[in-house]
Amino acid sequence: MANIGKQTIKFKKNISILETASIVGPKEGDGPLKNYFDIVLEDIMAGENTWEKAESIIVRKSLELATKKAKLAMTDIDYIIAGDLLNQNTGSTFGIRDLHRPFIGIFSACSAMGLSMGLGATFLESNFAKNVLASSSSHFCAAEKQFRFPLELGSQRPPTSTTTVTGCGVALLSNDNSDLPKIKAITTGKIVDMGITDPFNMGAAMAPAALDTIITHFNDLNIEPDYYDLIITGDLGHIGSEIILTLSKKEGYLLKNYKDCGILIYDKDTQDTHSGGSGCACAGTTFAGYLYKKMIEKEIKKLLFVPTGALLSPLSVLQKESIPGIAHAVAIEI
Amino acid sequence: MANIGKQTIKFKKNISILETASIVGPKEGDGPLKNYFDIVLEDIMAGENTWEKAESIIVRKSLELATKKAKLAMTDIDYIIAGDLLNQNTGSTFGIRDLHRPFIGIFSACSAMGLSMGLGATFLESNFAKNVLASSSSHFCAAEKQFRFPLELGSQRPPTSTTTVTGCGVALLSNDNSDLPKIKAITTGKIVDMGITDPFNMGAAMAPAALDTIITHFNDLNIEPDYYDLIITGDLGHIGSEIILTLSKKEGYLLKNYKDCGILIYDKDTQDTHSGGSGCACAGTTFAGYLYKKMIEKEIKKLLFVPTGALLSPLSVLQKESIPGIAHAVAIEI
Repeated sequence: MANIGKQTIKFKKNISILETASIVGPKEGDGPLKNYFDIVLEDIMAGENTWEKAESIIVRKSLELATKKAKLAMTDIDYIIAGDLLNQNTGSTFGIRDLHRPFIGIFSACSAMGLSMGLGATFLESNFAKNVLASSSSHFCAAEKQFRFPLELGSQRPPTSTTTVTGCGVALLSNDNSDLPKIKAITTGKIVDMGITDPFNMGAAMAPAALDTIITHFNDLNIEPDYYDLIITGDLGHIGSEIILTLSKKEGYLLKNYKDCGILIYDKDTQDTHSGGSGCACAGTTFAGYLYKKMIEKEIKKLLFVPTGALLSPLSVLQKESIPGIAHAVAIEI
Repeated sequence: MANIGKQTIKFKKNISILETASIVGPKEGDGPLKNYFDIVLEDIMAGENTWEKAESIIVRKSLELATKKAKLAMTDIDYIIAGDLLNQNTGSTFGIRDLHRPFIGIFSACSAMGLSMGLGATFLESNFAKNVLASSSSHFCAAEKQFRFPLELGSQRPPTSTTTVTGCGVALLSNDNSDLPKIKAITTGKIVDMGITDPFNMGAAMAPAALDTIITHFNDLNIEPDYYDLIITGDLGHIGSEIILTLSKKEGYLLKNYKDCGILIYDKDTQDTHSGGSGCACAGTTFAGYLYKKMIEKEIKKLLFVPTGALLSPLSVLQKESIPGIAHAVAIEI
C-alpha cells in the first residue's frame, strides 16, 4: 500500500475524482480557460461587502456545487479539507462554517490544492471516508491587501510579480469503480529554500521546490518524465517556469511535456498579469475547470499535477527571511 | 478499520506515542507543571531577535529533541505535521524549514495538536509512514502582537481573556508493539459557531464545539464519559470550562472526570493569567509534558485529549463576524 521511507504513496484502491467545481472572478472569466469554469462571477465582490467575505461565499458555493453535481447531499460528505492564503485560513473557515461537516484546515500557501487532494486520497485509500471534498481558494483583492499594498494606492508591480487568481477549485473524491479520473499516487513535498528574498518573484522561490518534488516522484516510482502526458505546476508563472526548465536540464531531466497553471489561466499579451497567475485558486480552478475536463475527454490521460507554494508571510519578509518553497504532487490517470 | 459515515476513526494497529518533547517559556516554567517540561527557557526570546523567530527556533528544537529522545535521526521521520497561530503558519514553517522532511502544514488554531496527532495516527494506521512528528506551537508576545494589541501599549485585558502559552509540544508517533501509550481513536471536529463575537472570550466561543466533538465521540464508539480516566480540553480556561460543564449537564452528560489544559498550566491565584492559558502550545505542551508522563506512570490510563480552537482572525473580528469554534479529540490508552 505504501512506500515506507519514501515521500510517495502509491494507492491500490480506486480513488475517483467524482466531480469538480470551479468558480472564478471576472478577470479569469476573460482568460483563455473561460469556457471550462462552472461559474464566472460578473462581480468580484460576489454580492458581499468585503473581499474576505466574497472569498468565503465563493468557497461555500463551490463546495455545494461539486456536491450537487455529483448528486450527493452535504451530509454524504465525510470530510472537507480546505486551505487558502488569508491569515488564519479565513476564506476556508468562514466558507465551510455553515456546512456542518468534519473539517481539516490546512495551510500550504498556493500548493493547498495538492495537499488537500493528497490528504483526501489517503483517507479514501484507508477506508476512513467515502466522500471527501478537497478545496483551495484565493481572492485577488484580499491577497493584495494582505500581502502587498492597499489596492487604493495603485502601486506598480514589477514584471516578475504574478496576479492572484480569484476563485475556488473543488475536487470531490470518492471510492468508485467508474471510468472517472483516478488518483494513483501522491508525493508530499519538503520545504526547499534557496535564499530568494524578493516577495515579488515567488516563481523563482518555488521552482526548486517544485523540481525537488517532481524528481522525487520519478525516483520513488521509478518512472521517467515522459510517463506523463502532462506535468503541470501550480503557479510558477513565466519566470518560474523558465527557471524549472533550466534547473531540470541541469539535473538531467527533459520536461518536454511541462506546463504551468499560472501561464494557462491568463492571456500574456492582452491581460497584463506580468509573470502570470498565482494563488491557491490558480492551481485549484485550473485543475477543477480545465484539466479535469481534458481528462474526461481523454485528451490528457496521465497527469502529474504539482501545485506550488511560497510559504512566506508579510512579517517574514519584513524580518528579511528568505522564502521557503514547497510543492505537492498528485498523479492522476484515466 | 474505519467507521464510515461517522466522525470517529478507530484504529486497529499499535499506534504508539514513542516520545514527546516540550519546551516552554519562563511564565510556564513558573507554573504548576514546571517539573514536567523538558526545557524551560529563561529568555522568552530564545536567543533570537524577534518573537516570531523565537517561536520558530522553539519549534525546531522541540522537533529535534523528540527525535533525539527516541534515539532516531531526523531522516527516520517520514512526515512532520505542524500548526500554529501565526499568519501563514510562520512559526511552524520557519521552524521546520531546515529539517528537510515532507511537511504537512495545518491550521486549526489552538486545536492544532489534536489535528496534527490525528492525521499522524491515520498515516501510521495505513502504513503510509513509520515515524511521524506531530507538533503545535505558540508564543505569547507574537500572538498578542498579531491578535490583540502591541505589547508596548500595556493594554488591560478583561477577566474573560486567556494568556497565550509560549512553547511547543511534540509527539513522535510510531508503529510499535511496546507498552507505550497508544492512540486508539480520533474524532475530527465540525465547526460550531454559536454567535459569540467577543475575541476576549474565546472559551465561550469554543465550549460548544468541544462538547459537540466529545458527545459525538461517545456516540460513535458507544461509550459513556466514565470510560475515560480523564477528559481534558485544550484551552477553554476557567470561563469556558464552566460553560462546557453547564452545557454537558443540559445534554444529559455528567463530566466528572473533566479538566482543561488552560487551567492546569498556570496558577490561578499567583500568575495573573485571567481565565487561564490558551494558544496552540497550551494543549501541546500540557500533553507532551504533563499528560504523557502521567500516562507513562499509569496515573492516567485512558485519556480523551480534546484540543480546542477559535477559528477567528483579527480581520474577521473587525468585520463583525462571530467566532467559529472547533475541537478534535484524540483517545489515548496505556
